[in-house]
Amino acid sequence: MNLKNIGESGLIKQIKKSVKTSSSVIKGIGDDCAVVAFSKTKYMLLTCDMLIENVDFKINDSPFWIGHKSLACSISDIASMGGLPKYALVSLGLPKDLSATFLRQLYRGINRLAGKFHIDIVGGDISKAGRLTIDISMVGFVEKIYLTLRSNAKVNDIIFITGELGAAPFGRHLTFMPRLKEARYLVENYKINAMIDISDGLLKDLSHILEESSRGASIYQWLIPLYRKQDNFLKAISRGEDFELLFTSSAKEAGRLIASGKRIYTAIGQILPKDYGLRLINGRFKEEKVEPLGFLHF
Amino acid sequence: MNLKNIGESGLIKQIKKSVKTSSSVIKGIGDDCAVVAFSKTKYMLLTCDMLIENVDFKINDSPFWIGHKSLACSISDIASMGGLPKYALVSLGLPKDLSATFLRQLYRGINRLAGKFHIDIVGGDISKAGRLTIDISMVGFVEKIYLTLRSNAKVNDIIFITGELGAAPFGRHLTFMPRLKEARYLVENYKINAMIDISDGLLKDLSHILEESSRGASIYQWLIPLYRKQDNFLKAISRGEDFELLFTSSAKEAGRLIASGKRIYTAIGQILPKDYGLRLINGRFKEEKVEPLGFLHF
Repeated sequence: MNLKNIGESGLIKQIKKSVKTSSSVIKGIGDDCAVVAFSKTKYMLLTCDMLIENVDFKINDSPFWIGHKSLACSISDIASMGGLPKYALVSLGLPKDLSATFLRQLYRGINRLAGKFHIDIVGGDISKAGRLTIDISMVGFVEKIYLTLRSNAKVNDIIFITGELGAAPFGRHLTFMPRLKEARYLVENYKINAMIDISDGLLKDLSHILEESSRGASIYQWLIPLYRKQDNFLKAISRGEDFELLFTSSAKEAGRLIASGKRIYTAIGQILPKDYGLRLINGRFKEEKVEPLGFLHF
Repeated sequence: MNLKNIGESGLIKQIKKSVKTSSSVIKGIGDDCAVVAFSKTKYMLLTCDMLIENVDFKINDSPFWIGHKSLACSISDIASMGGLPKYALVSLGLPKDLSATFLRQLYRGINRLAGKFHIDIVGGDISKAGRLTIDISMVGFVEKIYLTLRSNAKVNDIIFITGELGAAPFGRHLTFMPRLKEARYLVENYKINAMIDISDGLLKDLSHILEESSRGASIYQWLIPLYRKQDNFLKAISRGEDFELLFTSSAKEAGRLIASGKRIYTAIGQILPKDYGLRLINGRFKEEKVEPLGFLHF
């Protein structure tokens, strides 16, 4: 039995089962960030993202944007919990023949994004590697009342996404700006029930919310905004690395959000009871039950 | 200019220079852990260690001990700051053909050590990689009065190490038990001025203390305990991965520690003014100025 047979989600389930945690852990393995006790009013958030050459970027991509992306992925995880990032550690596995200029540019990308979001790069580790490997771990904080988990979607909630889908293959998987500002606007002004960032593809990430919340959902094809150069709808909703937010809130809160006129947030469907599964309603008003296709590592 | 020319310490200096941090960062890049504000009486410690196949372990090593080592390295970093570890994140870069059994054993190694030291494994990331890559990041806490940096060694301090050196090549680089208990005993009972863990070799890690503290030192060859199977003194003090503690305290505190009769702590030399450099006094009482040899990644 190797990793390809067991699959990524089987692997995570197996790991989750083997790990025991203490009472200070509010949420362990299985959301975008771990949530642990911090103060009377706040939780601490912990997350890490490992980016590897030829999987998450090509060595010929701009080193500035490789650095940018490696930090942006973790910021996106913190944003999807409703929190604010604060500290980051940067572990680098470096091929011997990498140039000092490449590394300087990589750090320029990291530092510029860190500056924008007031994140302190406080440390890291350097090792020799065959392929360039960047693992960024991040500490953030969230007010307890703002915490948004995957597991709290309610029947009849409206499902929203930010921005548009399908831009990742056109370079935006490197240059995307994590939706931190947009996430904080949401949690500070609305009651958001569940949130996740779209890293594995809309269908896959929505299915994470549905599974953790024990719900079903309908989404409407004609409501989902696509990137203008993207003409393959199925690819746009089943390929990863959009790094948009996917969230749900009650119909009443949704009404307020839509009335705000902020067009970055688009309603695309509704949460249903679990037995409905995940349904995609296409342009011909035909309902089809879909499998949660998405990016698989193995 | 590639990484081999610039070297690991040149690289870290360059990165350190490019990074700016805010006032909540007590100590950023350049110690075993980052130290950030936490509460009135405590600091938070952050560290990460990346282990890569063929650099830090062989793929034919026991997966249980590979897991053990990957967590133990980070615990050792927290110990050397005088702190206690609390949370860990595990990022894994996995080759496609790795067996599920291998991974289960790896996690058994991680979980057993985590259990021993009451560490919660709260999350992680999984990616595909060419070579097995394990990056563990850890959050710990330390009472402000117990914090031990590299930068506070004083002239006339006595230099100590725990245990014995040179066992790493005989398998102990995988199976070592991080000196957490020993470090906590020290900071809770004595005034320790500077501490580091010996990951790059005694000479190299002592030179880190000397550089950060602007001091020199003499160490005495016949005082340094060697692992019984190790017969090459120079290798024992210049090769990495002993993961013993190296620390300094005033002569008065040193006297108390020696009088305690705890033979795990051995005095091996003395801190001197900076101009003395690092001197090794050999068995023939001959003084020689030594270069800080140690493990280099590039």
